[in-house]
Amino acid sequence: MDRRRRRRRRRPARPRPGGGHPAEEDRLSTAQPRRRTGRRPGSPDTRNAVLAAARAAFAERGFDGATIRQIATAAGVDPALVHHYFGNKDKLFLAAIEAPANPAELLPEVLAGGTENLGENVVRLLLRVWDGPMRPAALALVRSAVTNEWTARLLREFLVSQILRRVVGTLGLPAAEREARGSLAASQLIGLVMARYVLRVEPLASASPESIVAAVGPTVQRYLTGDVDLPKP
Amino acid sequence: MDRRRRRRRRRPARPRPGGGHPAEEDRLSTAQPRRRTGRRPGSPDTRNAVLAAARAAFAERGFDGATIRQIATAAGVDPALVHHYFGNKDKLFLAAIEAPANPAELLPEVLAGGTENLGENVVRLLLRVWDGPMRPAALALVRSAVTNEWTARLLREFLVSQILRRVVGTLGLPAAEREARGSLAASQLIGLVMARYVLRVEPLASASPESIVAAVGPTVQRYLTGDVDLPKP
Repeated sequence: MDRRRRRRRRRPARPRPGGGHPAEEDRLSTAQPRRRTGRRPGSPDTRNAVLAAARAAFAERGFDGATIRQIATAAGVDPALVHHYFGNKDKLFLAAIEAPANPAELLPEVLAGGTENLGENVVRLLLRVWDGPMRPAALALVRSAVTNEWTARLLREFLVSQILRRVVGTLGLPAAEREARGSLAASQLIGLVMARYVLRVEPLASASPESIVAAVGPTVQRYLTGDVDLPKP
Repeated sequence: MDRRRRRRRRRPARPRPGGGHPAEEDRLSTAQPRRRTGRRPGSPDTRNAVLAAARAAFAERGFDGATIRQIATAAGVDPALVHHYFGNKDKLFLAAIEAPANPAELLPEVLAGGTENLGENVVRLLLRVWDGPMRPAALALVRSAVTNEWTARLLREFLVSQILRRVVGTLGLPAAEREARGSLAASQLIGLVMARYVLRVEPLASASPESIVAAVGPTVQRYLTGDVDLPKP
């Protein structure tokens, strides 16, 4: 225990990669002051410090820009400890935003259904998650995301890095087209959640999942693989 | 002045039409205790009392269920005063939710474009409002709507009674089909707002309005007039 602590303390404080503008530095240090002393590896304090630093890093730099090393530094712990307790970056991200479900576990089944059924299968999975016991947690995530700019970025990163990337990643498209199609699909999927579960617009709010899959699936399919003018500047 | 006050005081307190379950009574009385004394017709206090009573009534009973008479009673003023200061029920509703734009003024142009262009024209109008100076107010409305059940109902009533009803009202459909198509269109329109302006998913967030009209217009058109399986229980 003492040895591990000493090892952590001996790591030189390194400048944060990418520098970052002043607001970002402020935000990171508000979220988690970098004290590098006295944090026990498995304690709830340490865990919470890592999660707070992770939220700050993912919101400021995006999922791709944030690294476990930066997050560990901001939380004052060793990167190996973060890996040990949270696993990889995907899992740390899911823990940080308290994601109600893990798309990495749920999506393979959807993707195995084939490209031609992707739209319907994605809508079916979305409804299965939201109509199940995970709804309160999912609703809390969406509500917190809409409240301010900061939390909105975390939900966007969740959508883009954990869901859309996996869905459109199977289509063998150039990056720009992949992102354009992904963002269109996102607009319909988020809107379905908002209309059915948040605003509760009828008859969508009480309709059977399969009737919604039949109505909305073709839209998502068209956005992902169909003939569509892609949004551009 | 004294005479007007006396006249108001002399109106008998009438029971609220429709009764209402206990929670509703609580909510209405929290929003505005029914004191019927000393409220001057044009004062900001009176105006705010009417708006608070209106928010409570529209959230609890929906746009169709709420009446100006009930709202006036809850605010302790004469219904004629509400008509005088706010106009009709539509305008009172827009004032109560601080709507950034009046669909009754904006939609006729969209509807005049013909049924076959309805999808594209609705998306174009949505983007014009949200890309213009009204965005902060519109964003505030959406953010407040998502925060809790109570305000979500107000945004739903705004969407349904002020926007969808006018858009699908031109299509000459049976009521059930009108509502089903309207709720599908709502899911795409709300999702576009969420993806572009709230979560800022790229490239949708920075794309030109016309490229989005071309991509998303056909979806809304299909929901409104096309071949679509309608959501059902």
